[in-house]
Order: sequence, then C-alpha cells, then structure tokens
Amino acid sequence: MKVAVIGAGYWGPNLIRNFLMLDEVESVVACDLDEARLAKMRKLFHGIETSTDHNEVIGRGDIDIVVIATPVSTHHEIAKKALLAGKHCFIEKPMTASVAEAEELIEIAAREGLKLFVDHTFIYTGAVRKMKEIITSGRLGDLYYFDSVRINLGLFQHDVNVIWDLAPHDLSIMDYLLGQPALAVSATGTCHVGNGLEDIAYITLEFANNLIAHFHVNWLAPMKIRRTLIGGTKSMIVYDDTEASEKVKVYDKGIDVTTREGVYDTLVQYRTGDMLSPKLDQEEALAVGTRHFVDCILNDQQPTTDGQSGLNVVRILEASEISIKNRGQLIEL
Amino acid sequence: MKVAVIGAGYWGPNLIRNFLMLDEVESVVACDLDEARLAKMRKLFHGIETSTDHNEVIGRGDIDIVVIATPVSTHHEIAKKALLAGKHCFIEKPMTASVAEAEELIEIAAREGLKLFVDHTFIYTGAVRKMKEIITSGRLGDLYYFDSVRINLGLFQHDVNVIWDLAPHDLSIMDYLLGQPALAVSATGTCHVGNGLEDIAYITLEFANNLIAHFHVNWLAPMKIRRTLIGGTKSMIVYDDTEASEKVKVYDKGIDVTTREGVYDTLVQYRTGDMLSPKLDQEEALAVGTRHFVDCILNDQQPTTDGQSGLNVVRILEASEISIKNRGQLIEL
Amino acid sequence: MKVAVIGAGYWGPNLIRNFLMLDEVESVVACDLDEARLAKMRKLFHGIETSTDHNEVIGRGDIDIVVIATPVSTHHEIAKKALLAGKHCFIEKPMTASVAEAEELIEIAAREGLKLFVDHTFIYTGAVRKMKEIITSGRLGDLYYFDSVRINLGLFQHDVNVIWDLAPHDLSIMDYLLGQPALAVSATGTCHVGNGLEDIAYITLEFANNLIAHFHVNWLAPMKIRRTLIGGTKSMIVYDDTEASEKVKVYDKGIDVTTREGVYDTLVQYRTGDMLSPKLDQEEALAVGTRHFVDCILNDQQPTTDGQSGLNVVRILEASEISIKNRGQLIEL
Amino acid sequence: MKVAVIGAGYWGPNLIRNFLMLDEVESVVACDLDEARLAKMRKLFHGIETSTDHNEVIGRGDIDIVVIATPVSTHHEIAKKALLAGKHCFIEKPMTASVAEAEELIEIAAREGLKLFVDHTFIYTGAVRKMKEIITSGRLGDLYYFDSVRINLGLFQHDVNVIWDLAPHDLSIMDYLLGQPALAVSATGTCHVGNGLEDIAYITLEFANNLIAHFHVNWLAPMKIRRTLIGGTKSMIVYDDTEASEKVKVYDKGIDVTTREGVYDTLVQYRTGDMLSPKLDQEEALAVGTRHFVDCILNDQQPTTDGQSGLNVVRILEASEISIKNRGQLIEL
Repeated sequence: MKVAVIGAGYWGPNLIRNFLMLDEVESVVACDLDEARLAKMRKLFHGIETSTDHNEVIGRGDIDIVVIATPVSTHHEIAKKALLAGKHCFIEKPMTASVAEAEELIEIAAREGLKLFVDHTFIYTGAVRKMKEIITSGRLGDLYYFDSVRINLGLFQHDVNVIWDLAPHDLSIMDYLLGQPALAVSATGTCHVGNGLEDIAYITLEFANNLIAHFHVNWLAPMKIRRTLIGGTKSMIVYDDTEASEKVKVYDKGIDVTTREGVYDTLVQYRTGDMLSPKLDQEEALAVGTRHFVDCILNDQQPTTDGQSGLNVVRILEASEISIKNRGQLIEL
Repeated sequence: MKVAVIGAGYWGPNLIRNFLMLDEVESVVACDLDEARLAKMRKLFHGIETSTDHNEVIGRGDIDIVVIATPVSTHHEIAKKALLAGKHCFIEKPMTASVAEAEELIEIAAREGLKLFVDHTFIYTGAVRKMKEIITSGRLGDLYYFDSVRINLGLFQHDVNVIWDLAPHDLSIMDYLLGQPALAVSATGTCHVGNGLEDIAYITLEFANNLIAHFHVNWLAPMKIRRTLIGGTKSMIVYDDTEASEKVKVYDKGIDVTTREGVYDTLVQYRTGDMLSPKLDQEEALAVGTRHFVDCILNDQQPTTDGQSGLNVVRILEASEISIKNRGQLIEL
Repeated sequence: MKVAVIGAGYWGPNLIRNFLMLDEVESVVACDLDEARLAKMRKLFHGIETSTDHNEVIGRGDIDIVVIATPVSTHHEIAKKALLAGKHCFIEKPMTASVAEAEELIEIAAREGLKLFVDHTFIYTGAVRKMKEIITSGRLGDLYYFDSVRINLGLFQHDVNVIWDLAPHDLSIMDYLLGQPALAVSATGTCHVGNGLEDIAYITLEFANNLIAHFHVNWLAPMKIRRTLIGGTKSMIVYDDTEASEKVKVYDKGIDVTTREGVYDTLVQYRTGDMLSPKLDQEEALAVGTRHFVDCILNDQQPTTDGQSGLNVVRILEASEISIKNRGQLIEL
Repeated sequence: MKVAVIGAGYWGPNLIRNFLMLDEVESVVACDLDEARLAKMRKLFHGIETSTDHNEVIGRGDIDIVVIATPVSTHHEIAKKALLAGKHCFIEKPMTASVAEAEELIEIAAREGLKLFVDHTFIYTGAVRKMKEIITSGRLGDLYYFDSVRINLGLFQHDVNVIWDLAPHDLSIMDYLLGQPALAVSATGTCHVGNGLEDIAYITLEFANNLIAHFHVNWLAPMKIRRTLIGGTKSMIVYDDTEASEKVKVYDKGIDVTTREGVYDTLVQYRTGDMLSPKLDQEEALAVGTRHFVDCILNDQQPTTDGQSGLNVVRILEASEISIKNRGQLIEL
C-alpha cells in the first residue's frame, strides 16, 4: 500500500513513522503547503517523497490511503476529494467542523465502499481498552458519572476554541466507554484574549438514569492534568494519563442503598475496599490504530473509531458551542 | 471567658480543644442531646462540664461565647437565642440555611454590639493567607479564573446536599481571595439515591471582566482531591490541600496578548518560567481562628470571617440550589 | 488501672490521650522535670494530675503502669526502678542505650512476672500488620531484599545520632516482617556539625540466602521520604508512609529463573502484572498498641513488641555504631 | 560529515535519528551483526545505508565519526581501531571495561588529535545543566552529601552487573556536579540468580571535608525511582527524573551551626524557607550532546564529557566491583 500524509505539522512525523513501520505499507508521501516542513521530513525520514500539491497526490493512481492531518476546517473538503478519488481515509480528530459535514463523509464512504477512520488515538491505548473491558464486565455496576479534566498551558489553536481542540479526546473516550447517547448538553466558558475563542470551558452532559458527564478543558492552566473519574455503584475508576505506569486504578468502593422495610427511609452505606491497578498493554496507541485501520481495509471490517464515532463527537462539540454562546443554555440532543 | 460548645459530633472535640488551649478561656461546657457523646468528651477532656440542655446553658450568666456546631437547619434558631442572651457567637459553616436567616443574625449582632464569627476555617490556614498575600501584591496580574475540586467518598449528610456540605469551604476561600461579588450562578448535578439530595454537583460563577469560577463537589469519588487553580495574566497558583508541605505553588506562567500595530490581529504568546512554593505557616487553622475571634471580642474589631462573609457564601448556595433544580438555569445574583 | 507517664515532651500528649481513652484506665499522672510542660498538660487535659518527681510517683501503690518517654540514656534506670517497684513498663523506642541494659530489663521483668512493652508504634499500624499478613501468606515468595529510606529535616537529638533516632522504626518493622536474625552489619555515614553525632547514615544487613537489607536515615534532607521496598521472587511491596491512603502496594512482579536443560545457561525472565493496594485498618497505631499492652497485662500474654523485640533492634544499633566509627567495617552479629 | 553507528540495538535508533537531524551530518551508516536489526533501521529511516561488517566501514575514507553502541566489553577494541583509522569517537557509557582500557584510548586520541566523546547523556539534560549552574553559583553553600537512587525492574544485562549497567548515569552526574575526586569507595550488594552478577548494589563514596555520596542501583524493584538529593549548608536540591516538568527543586533549607561564645556547646538550628523549581531547557539531551560533539570537532575543543570524564566513572566502577566481592571492603582511590 501507498500512503499520502497531508499535513506535516506537529502530529505529522508520528503518522509518517507509524505508517512506515507497517509491513503492508510500501511507502509514504508527505504533503504540506510549507516547503520547510517538507525539508525536515526528508531529513528525518531520509529522502522520503514529498509534495506541496496534495490535490495532485490525491489524484494519483498508486495512492491507497489518504491521511488528513490539516486544520479542522479543511477536513471535509480534502476527505471528500479523497473518497471520491477512491481512497480510504484516516482523518485527524475532530472529524469535521460540523455535523452536516460528518454525515456527508459517512454517506460517501458507505456508498463508495471505502473505510473512514477517525484518529481518536486514545481509544487504542492500553489504558482505555482495559477500562472498556472492566466496564463491559459489569465490575463497576450501574454507572453514576464520568468526570474528565484535560488542562495545560496549551498553544492556542487559532482556528478553533479550546472545546474543539481538547474535548474530542475525552468525548471520544466517553462515547467508547459508556456506549450510550447523551440526551442534553450545557456548556460554560470564557475567552480572555481578543480573538473571541474560548480558552476555558466546562461541559455537562445528561444521560438516561441520572448518569452525568462533565468535562473541564483549559488552555490557561499552569500544570498538565489529564484525569478521568468514572463512578459506579460497585466500584470506581480513576484514569490518570500523566502517570507513567499506573494509569488506571479500580477502587472497590461504592455505596449500598437500601430502604428500611416498611419505612420510607433511605439507608446509604459506603463500602470501601482494595484498589487494583491492572497491567496495561504498553504498545504505542498510534501503532495499534494504524495497524487496525490497515487490517479493516484488508478484511473489509468497520474500524472501532469509524465515521459514526467521529460524528458522535462532532455532534456534542457543535451543541456545546451553541450552549456556551448562550451562557450555558441547555441544548437537547 | 467561659465558652459553651453546642454539638459534640465530628468537629466538636477540635473546637473544645482549641478553645481550652487559649489563655483567655477559663473553661468550656460541652452540650449535646446525645449523652454518649458527652461521656466521650468527659473522658477525653478529663471531667469537663457537660449538659444535654443547651437552652439552659445559653441562658447562664457566666457564659461569654456560644459555639454552634449543630446541623445547619438549627443554626439560626440557636444563634438568635444566644445573641439575644448577649453572647458572642461562633457558628460552623454554612452560617445558615437561607439568606434571610443570615441577614437577620447580622442585624441582631450589630444591634446588640456582639461579635458574629463564621467558622470558614480554611481562611486561617497558612496556605490561604499566603495566597491572599500573593494576590493582593498583584503578582498574578488580572485574574482569569478560579477552579476548585473538592471530592471524596463522603459520609452522606442527611439534611443537606453535597453543595451545602462541601462547597462552603471553596466558596469562602474564593470570596476571601477574589474580594468581588459573583454576578450570576449556574449549577448542574444529580442525585443517585432515593433521598433527593444531590451527591455530585458543578457550579459556575460569572464575575465582571470575564473572570469565571467553577466548583466540582462530589461525595461519590474514590479518592480525595482538594485542588484549586487560580489563573492570572502574569502567574498562576495551584493550591493542593492534600499535599503535606508544598500546598501552594506559584507558576511564573501566563500569556502576553498584543495586537500587531495597525492590524486587527491578536498575537498570543505564552510565558513560562520558574515555579515557587512558598514557606507556609504551619499553625493549626482552628487555633488561629479561635484566637482571632477572642481577640476581636477583646479589642472590639470585626472578624475576617464575619456575618457578611457567611452571608456571601449562603447567597451563592441558595442560588445554586435553585439553578440545579432547574437543570442549570442561569441565576443572576 | 492508673498510669504514670514519665516525660511530657513531643510524644507525651499522645501517650496520655491514648491511655486516657482506654476503658480500663481510670486516670493518668503526667511527670516531667519541666513545670512549663506540665502546665500545658493540665490545660490540654483539663486538670490532670502532674508531678515533677517521677521517683515518688513510681513508688506509689496506686500506679499499675509506668510509661517511659524520656531520653534513651535514662530508659534503663527508670524502667529498672519501675519493674522493681512491681509496675508493668511501656518504654519508648529505642528500648535502651545498650544490649546489656536491654538484657537486664528482660531478665528482671521475667523474674518479677511483669510485662515489658517497647513502643515500636509502627508495628501496630494497619499498613505493617497488612504487610505481615501478606508476607506470611507466601505471596512474595522467597525474599530478596528489604530497602528502607527514612529522611527529613529533623530536629537534632542532642544525645543520640541519626541511627539511634530514626533507624529503630525501620529496624523494628524489618525484624517483625522478616522474622529472622541478621548475620552481619556494615554502616557508613558522616557528621557535619561539631557535636560528633552522625546526621546521615547508611546501614547494610546480611541475612541467610542472599537476603539483604539496607537503611538510609538522614536528618539533613529537604523533604520527607518514608519508603520501604520489599522484594521477593513472586511479588514485591512498596510501603510509602507519606501516602494518605494507599500506603501499601503489592506488585505482581518478579523474576523467573530457569536453567536451560543440559546447558549451563541461566535464563532470567521478568513477570509483570497487576498492582494491588489493599484496604488498611485506619485506627491510630498508638490506640491499638496501648490497648494491646493493657490486654496483655489482663490476660497474661506476651506483647508483640516485647523486650526481645526491643533487644533485637538495640543489638543492630549497637553494632552499626561500631561499624560507622570504623568506616564501614563488617560486624558479625 | 559522514557517521557510522556501530550497534543498532535499543539505543541505536536514537543515535541515528539525532545524528541525521544535524545540519553538518550528510548521512549515517548503520552497522550491526544482526541483519534483522538492520532491516528495521532501513524501514524506519527509509533506505538508510547498512552494513554487517563494521571493520570495513571503520576503514572507509568517507567516514568522519564512529559511534560505538555495542556491549561494553567491545568498546575498547572498536574505539582503538577507529581512532587509529583517524576517526573521531562517540562511545556509549560506560566508556570501557577497565581503567587501563580507558587510559589507553585517551592517550591515543590525544596523540592523534582526535575527539573522544563519552555518551553520559544526562550531562546534556536541562535538569543537570541547571543544577550545575546552581551549585557553581554557590547557592547550596558547602556540600554535605549526594544521594542517588536509580531502580526499576530492568532487563538483565548478561555481560555486566547492575553497577556497570545503571551507576554510570549517576556517577557521571555526580562527577560533573561535584567536580572533585572521590577518595574511597565501599560497595555492598547481592545477586539472586545463578549468573553471579549482582542485581542490587549500594555504593558509598568518601570525599574530602566529610562530603559523602551514596548510590542505590537495583534491577529488581517493582517501580521506577530516579531520585538524587544534594545537600548543602545553605540549600538542598531534589532532582527527580521521573517528574514530567518539575524535575529540579531547590529548597531554601539548611542548618546554621554556631558555637556559643566561650562554651564548647554546639548550637544547631534549622532554616526552612521557600522551594523553587526552575524552568528547564526541554531540548532532547541527545540532540544537545551530538551537536556539542560535532561543534567540538569543528572548533577543536574538548567535549564536556571527554575521555577523562569517562575514565573518572570507570575508575569508581572498577573499585566498586572489588569492594562488593570483598563484602564492602573500603577501597582507597
């Protein structure tokens, strides 16, 4: 297979390296409008082919896969072109700038029989896969809440606000782990510089059965926090991505709720027990993801992070943006 | 001076011990409806005087100070009686169950020339006093946000929800450090047991100049987190109360926002620098607070955490409760 | 029972409070040469009986237990007097200033039918008791090493060096957990002030079967570290006493050693697995210890931390001191 | 310049990548006896030149630099050949298997006018360079101790023990920061598998003026610890390499030692103050080191980590091995 990687910025070298390491991949072409970036790629990957004209590359007959690592606003246009040229697409998160765009890409890919992969990289980490396994096993009991904090001193993304930049990670993890649709969204936040883009935001999601999810994303934090809490009746998970090895901790803590017989009195009792930090697969998530994508192409299967998964995230992002512009107004999904 | 401590539950022994250690305090009477608790006090404090009738004790002529450590719903009634009996009052947080109650107590105390102290203990920690000093010095520049998380597996408080139980700590710290009124409140949360009391809640406060404050309080968390971030243009503070010694960290990090001359283009640049963790006074906060209270009585001065400070907190609690019952509706203050 | 606590310094109030809380203890007399300290005890424990003449108190017929919390150099003399006066003795660690002193106290107590308790408090923590249970169960396999670090910026003890001050904690934990005698000791260290007392020291102990133990004690460290690693063939323990709740972590990590059949080639393979942090009993160790002591008196049983346990620790301290004065010379025990 | 990298194991790809990224480096030839490793290099670095015959490559006229990343036992032979062939040498740590070997290489390089660089990578980290700056400025006052722990569950190195594998990192950091020769060495440790190589070891070094250094290296630890404490009269440093950003912390803590006038009584007082965590340069250490090496060649300067620096470390390793075989015997250097 031949792969075209469009966009050789921050994440580009990782994409190129991981596709190059796949046995099924023969070569990679790196595209970018910026010739200096391409020169760096040629130095790092020792004479790799490069191009400043991605349209020309997309049109070439020897390219099988198009990887899109450009600004979000361009995802839809490039992916549409690539799909219509018969290429499988690997799109960086967030998938598109709107629900309508995502829906159109899903439809075209289905019609053309092509694979659409959204790079929700975290889904392929050992940590998230282990949490999925634990939740599926029923070990947490009924779910109470999903609470996520992702903050640091971030480089401002000039085309999107902090929600579009950081929340896709956590929303995709949530979507994968909870496996149920959010019913309503409310978001608050502010921007502190003249560009009108929020740099701090809080999102609350309502689900059925009093399940609640909450997200804090922040570009103005002095330290890096990447922590998710998932609470259930039987046990609870703390997922701290800044930990070197013990990223996932499962606490045998929960509450027992009973009603005294014949009395309208609720008895709540805490159970506290051991904490287990399971062994996690250490393989690089992007290596797992790119291999999974290539396997899905070869075996005609749907990727775990397919267009629908990308759309679920974009739908919440779009609603959050409406809510935040209306000072936290509740948006039904 | 003679002190009556009403309520010998969880916090009672700490109150008794700290008042006993003051040079100005001659003796303490412990009151509680539960005789078993009083027996424990007599064992721990070696023959201390106790009573199950706090009304009688309040009426005694030899009592100068009444300390109220009973459930919130009873604060107003007991404090009013004590004030009308001419006693200075030390009230546990939150001050009262409503704004109206707090306002009445403030008015009576002023009229009678008595001191009203609300036990926002954290204000008297070395950490919070140091942060006040840093913020007052202008070192943070303009303030951007105040973000607080206070979660753990908590004993359910059967008379109040998690906001009334945990948020008073952080709201009082915020009120003290920011020194400006919140303009609007929005709160979301859920309850997961049959008693109708929220066990998880998120509160957002809006201030002038895009300053935003956010609070996460949670009784269902498997681990204890007590962390506050305060961001400004010039530097930022991380306050982690679970740290043994380095509770306060000041990061010389911030952003420079400039507009290119003659161009409507905003340039944002990060500055990152050193981190400083200042030495903190290690004295027990309750010792500092009780001594301050007694000093205020003797020198006829207003306590730092007076009735107004208690009222500011209760006002936000009351509005948060209305908002949470209306799925996050924005409440102007 | 009536208890005399001799020495009302740093640890004194904790001893008084814990003995006072026992149902079997009727009253406590606090003794100290320093009247100011006694005044503080009378204020804190509301009119408790005090005395500056411990000899007189030891001689009183109504005293059943003598608690010795004075400088180490005086332990032997006071304990001997108390035993000869027919009192059960509770001695702070280290038990005595020499092996000979410890042996004499053990002998007198045995002869007089009295209980000798050495306050190796850590043995009564939930953490150490849980580790004992885990090691006894065989979960660690064969033991490889015991490595302990106990450092902080400590107040200089003017009568003993850092080994006598800090190492008794870790040596008593080691003695309890390993349950086997050290065969040889080597210690290095230095002193940096004119008093000739080492403020940094390292101790290595040799045991049978290549088991090794090592201790780092340091009064000049800028931060507090209290960490012990215990390694075995099957799993390993990390015990971090500065952690609030997860003090004990058991790692399912170890090595498999095999020899290829017919070949003199050793194959070593690592096994890495989950980590478990067991729930620990949170009761105050001194409460458990004092109750255990009183129970041993009432039921005529030997305390877990008896004179022999105290002697084991003193023997290593004494040998370490000889080794350190001889630049690390190996001392056979 | 053209570079030959001999040894394409664990560290090889990092060496190749960093030399490739230098402007002065035109191309890299990767050598290894294992053809599978070379195939991986060709895939990762897209058609890079490879060879299984490093002797032939060393002999080529177009090669300027030989990088030696092979087992320690082969360093001397390969480096000697390369130097005699007129190549500058970049040698992985530890430099050689003996003091005699190191001395010979230094002599040959000096005679031939070639640069010898020992890859003590840590010296080029922002953390170590910042600590050097702090210590040189006198901020720590007189030095008291250097204490280092480097432990983890490590892959057994079949040709060397844990001292030769792990201690070179810390010894090189110590040598660089203290800048003075150790006077005596004592080492203890054990091996737990049949191969006779120690897997746990403790090294103590004596210096002039009661300065002491201690090292704990361990392949059998369940968790990764990389921590160094450096104590001085005025302040102290904690260097924790597992921390993501705050690797270096400077504590304004120390002791004041005075002698009361006319009295032989030493007064020791602690000073405790703020803690500062300085901003560190984040550039990859190997990028800094390789660039420094190439700069030294071009400008005919001595590298910071030259042959003498490599020899200082090997001298302590050699003495430690003798000491450990003699149960901790003190070896004068």
